[in-house]
Amino acid sequence: MTLRVAMIGHGFMGAAHSVGWRQAPAIFDLPDRVEMSVLVGRDAAAAEAAARKWGWSESATDWREVVTRDDVDIVDIVTPGDIHAEIAIAALAAGKHVLCEKPMANSVAQAESMLAAAEQAAARGTKAMVGFTYRRVPAVTLLRDLIAQGKVGNIHQVRAAYRQDWLVDPETPLAWRLQKDHAGSGALGDIGAHIIDMTQFVTGLAVDAVSGTVQTVVPRRPLLDSGSGLSGTAAEGYGDVTVDDLAIFTGRLAGGALVSFEATRFATGRKNALTIEVSGDKGALLFDLEDLNRLRFYDRTAPSRLQGFTAILVTEPVHPYVAAWWPAGHVLGYEHGFVHQAADFVTAVCTGAPAHPTFAEGLSVQRVLDAVQHSAAAESAWVDVHEPTTVSMR
Amino acid sequence: MTLRVAMIGHGFMGAAHSVGWRQAPAIFDLPDRVEMSVLVGRDAAAAEAAARKWGWSESATDWREVVTRDDVDIVDIVTPGDIHAEIAIAALAAGKHVLCEKPMANSVAQAESMLAAAEQAAARGTKAMVGFTYRRVPAVTLLRDLIAQGKVGNIHQVRAAYRQDWLVDPETPLAWRLQKDHAGSGALGDIGAHIIDMTQFVTGLAVDAVSGTVQTVVPRRPLLDSGSGLSGTAAEGYGDVTVDDLAIFTGRLAGGALVSFEATRFATGRKNALTIEVSGDKGALLFDLEDLNRLRFYDRTAPSRLQGFTAILVTEPVHPYVAAWWPAGHVLGYEHGFVHQAADFVTAVCTGAPAHPTFAEGLSVQRVLDAVQHSAAAESAWVDVHEPTTVSMR
Amino acid sequence: MTLRVAMIGHGFMGAAHSVGWRQAPAIFDLPDRVEMSVLVGRDAAAAEAAARKWGWSESATDWREVVTRDDVDIVDIVTPGDIHAEIAIAALAAGKHVLCEKPMANSVAQAESMLAAAEQAAARGTKAMVGFTYRRVPAVTLLRDLIAQGKVGNIHQVRAAYRQDWLVDPETPLAWRLQKDHAGSGALGDIGAHIIDMTQFVTGLAVDAVSGTVQTVVPRRPLLDSGSGLSGTAAEGYGDVTVDDLAIFTGRLAGGALVSFEATRFATGRKNALTIEVSGDKGALLFDLEDLNRLRFYDRTAPSRLQGFTAILVTEPVHPYVAAWWPAGHVLGYEHGFVHQAADFVTAVCTGAPAHPTFAEGLSVQRVLDAVQHSAAAESAWVDVHEPTTVSMR
Amino acid sequence: MTLRVAMIGHGFMGAAHSVGWRQAPAIFDLPDRVEMSVLVGRDAAAAEAAARKWGWSESATDWREVVTRDDVDIVDIVTPGDIHAEIAIAALAAGKHVLCEKPMANSVAQAESMLAAAEQAAARGTKAMVGFTYRRVPAVTLLRDLIAQGKVGNIHQVRAAYRQDWLVDPETPLAWRLQKDHAGSGALGDIGAHIIDMTQFVTGLAVDAVSGTVQTVVPRRPLLDSGSGLSGTAAEGYGDVTVDDLAIFTGRLAGGALVSFEATRFATGRKNALTIEVSGDKGALLFDLEDLNRLRFYDRTAPSRLQGFTAILVTEPVHPYVAAWWPAGHVLGYEHGFVHQAADFVTAVCTGAPAHPTFAEGLSVQRVLDAVQHSAAAESAWVDVHEPTTVSMR
Repeated sequence: MTLRVAMIGHGFMGAAHSVGWRQAPAIFDLPDRVEMSVLVGRDAAAAEAAARKWGWSESATDWREVVTRDDVDIVDIVTPGDIHAEIAIAALAAGKHVLCEKPMANSVAQAESMLAAAEQAAARGTKAMVGFTYRRVPAVTLLRDLIAQGKVGNIHQVRAAYRQDWLVDPETPLAWRLQKDHAGSGALGDIGAHIIDMTQFVTGLAVDAVSGTVQTVVPRRPLLDSGSGLSGTAAEGYGDVTVDDLAIFTGRLAGGALVSFEATRFATGRKNALTIEVSGDKGALLFDLEDLNRLRFYDRTAPSRLQGFTAILVTEPVHPYVAAWWPAGHVLGYEHGFVHQAADFVTAVCTGAPAHPTFAEGLSVQRVLDAVQHSAAAESAWVDVHEPTTVSMR
Repeated sequence: MTLRVAMIGHGFMGAAHSVGWRQAPAIFDLPDRVEMSVLVGRDAAAAEAAARKWGWSESATDWREVVTRDDVDIVDIVTPGDIHAEIAIAALAAGKHVLCEKPMANSVAQAESMLAAAEQAAARGTKAMVGFTYRRVPAVTLLRDLIAQGKVGNIHQVRAAYRQDWLVDPETPLAWRLQKDHAGSGALGDIGAHIIDMTQFVTGLAVDAVSGTVQTVVPRRPLLDSGSGLSGTAAEGYGDVTVDDLAIFTGRLAGGALVSFEATRFATGRKNALTIEVSGDKGALLFDLEDLNRLRFYDRTAPSRLQGFTAILVTEPVHPYVAAWWPAGHVLGYEHGFVHQAADFVTAVCTGAPAHPTFAEGLSVQRVLDAVQHSAAAESAWVDVHEPTTVSMR
Repeated sequence: MTLRVAMIGHGFMGAAHSVGWRQAPAIFDLPDRVEMSVLVGRDAAAAEAAARKWGWSESATDWREVVTRDDVDIVDIVTPGDIHAEIAIAALAAGKHVLCEKPMANSVAQAESMLAAAEQAAARGTKAMVGFTYRRVPAVTLLRDLIAQGKVGNIHQVRAAYRQDWLVDPETPLAWRLQKDHAGSGALGDIGAHIIDMTQFVTGLAVDAVSGTVQTVVPRRPLLDSGSGLSGTAAEGYGDVTVDDLAIFTGRLAGGALVSFEATRFATGRKNALTIEVSGDKGALLFDLEDLNRLRFYDRTAPSRLQGFTAILVTEPVHPYVAAWWPAGHVLGYEHGFVHQAADFVTAVCTGAPAHPTFAEGLSVQRVLDAVQHSAAAESAWVDVHEPTTVSMR
Repeated sequence: MTLRVAMIGHGFMGAAHSVGWRQAPAIFDLPDRVEMSVLVGRDAAAAEAAARKWGWSESATDWREVVTRDDVDIVDIVTPGDIHAEIAIAALAAGKHVLCEKPMANSVAQAESMLAAAEQAAARGTKAMVGFTYRRVPAVTLLRDLIAQGKVGNIHQVRAAYRQDWLVDPETPLAWRLQKDHAGSGALGDIGAHIIDMTQFVTGLAVDAVSGTVQTVVPRRPLLDSGSGLSGTAAEGYGDVTVDDLAIFTGRLAGGALVSFEATRFATGRKNALTIEVSGDKGALLFDLEDLNRLRFYDRTAPSRLQGFTAILVTEPVHPYVAAWWPAGHVLGYEHGFVHQAADFVTAVCTGAPAHPTFAEGLSVQRVLDAVQHSAAAESAWVDVHEPTTVSMR
């Protein structure tokens, strides 16, 4: 059998997903063949160029038509977040397996409707998955496995941050990602979503309450050009940044452990620094995306004079995903997670195995994001995640 | 001339201060001689043993008597925090220069009365200084200098943490430091104070509002023994921990930049990990107390392809304090800050130069600590530092 | 136009090269299309499976036939070293562009004949290149560029090592790589070749004399099985390791700077640790293959109190090759060098630009390897590289 | 009882030793009291100033007189190496315990006569020790202990380097340390001695043969002034550097394991970078003097997916020497080794326990240094350590 994939969208994420689809069958022994069938984009010429560049058999401009085609099995959604829900629901209704890039949606309501659609589809054996690919960096998968096996013990606290610096220059222009109407959210939704998901994934615990602050460090930026359609007075050619640049929030996990979260685009010198440290009564684990081939493990059960953080080079055949790649010590990079994601999704589709992150997990991230925004609007008061309008006492 | 020092107290801090007084005259060319005259402790035998061990000429048991002796010039207070105010005020009234270990006091009110005493004394040329010795780690002094010289530019955000792990074991007993009556506060006041002071010191900006959460991760611990006098039901020999173990809070600096703070005794594997990172539009600086001979500097004004964090080994003669020590590359340790502190205080006393941290700075730290506790008691709502009972809108 | 590639061999290197050919056209804007035409292997079934797995259009078993096919433009040689010369010379004679994996040959004589063939072919516009892919790790390319631009100044010394640990276990069996008849050489030729090439590449200076020692740390190992055809007495099922495990040698660069070299398969805990540090009067540069997205640069011309090793995260668009990949901070891995290699070779073939490493460079590495073996056989006496039988006075 | 110490010399090492004698009694519970009795220097005024600065009771100018005084128990020699032998032999003959700074002597012959004197004195209970203080950095002591306890297993190889950069500037003047007549040797004897001793100390194995090269990277340097008495033609005010700047040598340990050694003053950016890595069949250990509070341990017996280098922060009470100092995580610096050395020597003198490094160990280092120079003069041919004039076949 052959699984035929249609990809909707072709920006940066389209490139990464294309590499995933191209490489997965060569690197992994997949149960079925994969065909990169059709790439969809609004602009016909651009879509055709992208399809040729990335190895898609054809291109198209109307996603509605494509997601119902008989010769499509998997719909891979890499558009901006505002149309994720519409596409995903249509594709699931048409019986297509859906891989949807994160963030799953721009609102909780959208995510809820997507989950409902996924649950209906699941009853028919159709798979739905969200693209938090960092789960599939081998060191992150190992981190999760070690926690699940009790190496950290009872979790006392978590420290998670995602720090970038691409907005430090105040003359960086007012791109669509800095406008609430288009992007929905700023650093919080874009990169904060990753550390929320990763925290929940590796600990197996839900964030059930939050208290947070968001800030727009540079509130006005140069307009790209007069035709940009961006809001803001055009006087002097500057417009308002309407999303956050920086979000600092504290979460409470089920069971009570606290998590410090920080998502920022103003951490000078930090390029793509997703870091997470989980501390428990038996040990601690530390990961840094800028050093993604290593996992640091502190084993409190080791002899006391030998304790320290062990820098595990996660490049051995015994490590998750690694046996399919190169010999020991040969490091992997950013896009390998997309190859693993494609391989895992294909396997889930073919074998019926569970595909994670589920839409339920994607929704839970949206709810945490939503709660942070409620808290930030209420003087940082604690907000329950599942009922974000209620300020709870604790 | 000779400056004669009396030290009140002789625990861990007494040892560190003793090394400071012993070594400062040997390492630095001080304007006057220093004599370690008298060590004061409640228990005569213990005080005498400590005096002999650390090189104090004599010992005594009554601090009230000592602080008024004619043959004492400097009073160095290293007792628990609850009697700092009483001793400091008495010593200042007697015309003695006072070095008071941090935290300056156990309450804002105490600190305010200490400041009032210090201001009166200052009019007579008497010096008062608080012992935030980490300011005098060469890498921290350099960090401050570089910010003052504009190397970081406009500060966008700060990330400060002080992480230890000595309470991870739930069977660690209920020492006095875990009882509010005796210790005043837990991780917040003990180590949180350091990162508040360091943030204000290196940035030159006051923390003017906070939102925070404190937690007691392990709420009950074994009593040391029946005669410990600790509160808590003695059933099964466990008592209540009445201070925080973990404090996560966000501060707002004058000008609006946010600071993420974390003070914890539950960060498994972190022994004495005070870290601070200051991010601005021209650069960033990063310090880690577990690696205290290095300062990391990111220069955004460097050619773009050469940008990165530079690990400055702060062991060259051009670096603060270092020329007095060893040749290039020969690293310093924890107690060197106490030597620098003693040398700087002696110099200030002799020359009339300003002595920092001032009592006003010590009080400002107390006010921030107080505001964090108010915020934590009010669902993490933002609290202004200078009027901590008011919850402000912003 | 389309360049049609034939690859001879399909082991580990075949996989890496296949990824290179697959990905290069998708990631880079190449002047011509690339077609992965035919994969050649002795065993028809294995070759066909590999071809399917890696995306080659067809497979074949007779390399002699393939290298003369009209519908082949490029011959990529990834066989064991003992038949590199024969294939390369035949392919060049047939007018094919040749990419030959390192080490270029198993002897200086073979390499010399290959160079002669390449020089003849060059006169007709045919390209020949050796696969020292580590030159194309972006951080290594940047290292070379910075030296070329004078950032290190006059080179005083180089410290280069390639350390692995896959032979530490004495029960690791006697594979063909541990037999001189099959592998030619051990750690020296396999990984020592890389650090010789890298040293010459980044400094632009030839190694013109060497003094060295080689050792076989574990001299006897278990035979794989009785049918292995390996030498050694089969008594107790052990046989002799006939290549070196560990080579320590000193080189002298043109101009006189010394280089310390170490190639080892016994550096416990080191998986693929190629490290090189170049020290000069203006600065120093340091690279570590286990951390391949970073380059460390020490700038002696910086203000003295700011000097230190700067950890450049070589993931910015201004860095070599990086603009074609992901946004800032998204790290690359091992196989990306093979993508760069394929792209550069295609570009050289299409545009006539020079293709490096040249066969002359490959030969020079062989000569250094040869000289090390001569020195090791002569009590480590210094040996000139170009006349390796002569022991010179200096 | 009180042990009365006389120190001969008062340069950089005099300062470090003085700190050792001052601090040891305060930090450690020593069996006897220590009195810093007399400091000896040629220039009376300079000696008196140093004595006052460092806390010695008196000063003197004639070491011959001092080493026979009845009120002196320990003679501590920190002069240049050329008079070590004379002083040590006289002091031992007078029944004084002797601590002699490294290098033990400027020649093998001197060291041999010192050892003879020490052996005679030992029969009378007199102690003699050489000042390789780095043995007493807690992480180094721990490294030795772990090897002794089998954590590394059979040692396969060692990689040791001592790298500094204070001669990179060609205008650094021609100080006495760069003149063979005064300094005996250059980088080899000064810092190479440390890595030879450390290798032998931590492995418990003797270096029994060497092959090496020495180089003077910058052969001529500016004369300090016309009255410097330095050799070299004064034309243009430059003179010849007559010692090595850089030594690269390979050693063979008893049992056959190879050691790569490098001692250099030209490693740009390396300030005091003594590094040693010991690799065996059960594990590896790595130490770096620029990061001296950490020891890195790779445990090959750990579960394979958890293997990595563990960064042990050697600041816990369970670690060597540390319990006497500060709480966990409070780092030590360079001079703490001198405090440990003083404490250990006092303890050995009082209790009769062995004092290491012995003069026999000091002599063995001299013999290795001598053999390296013989090898360097013989085209790097291998030289046996114990009969350095013989070039052996192996």
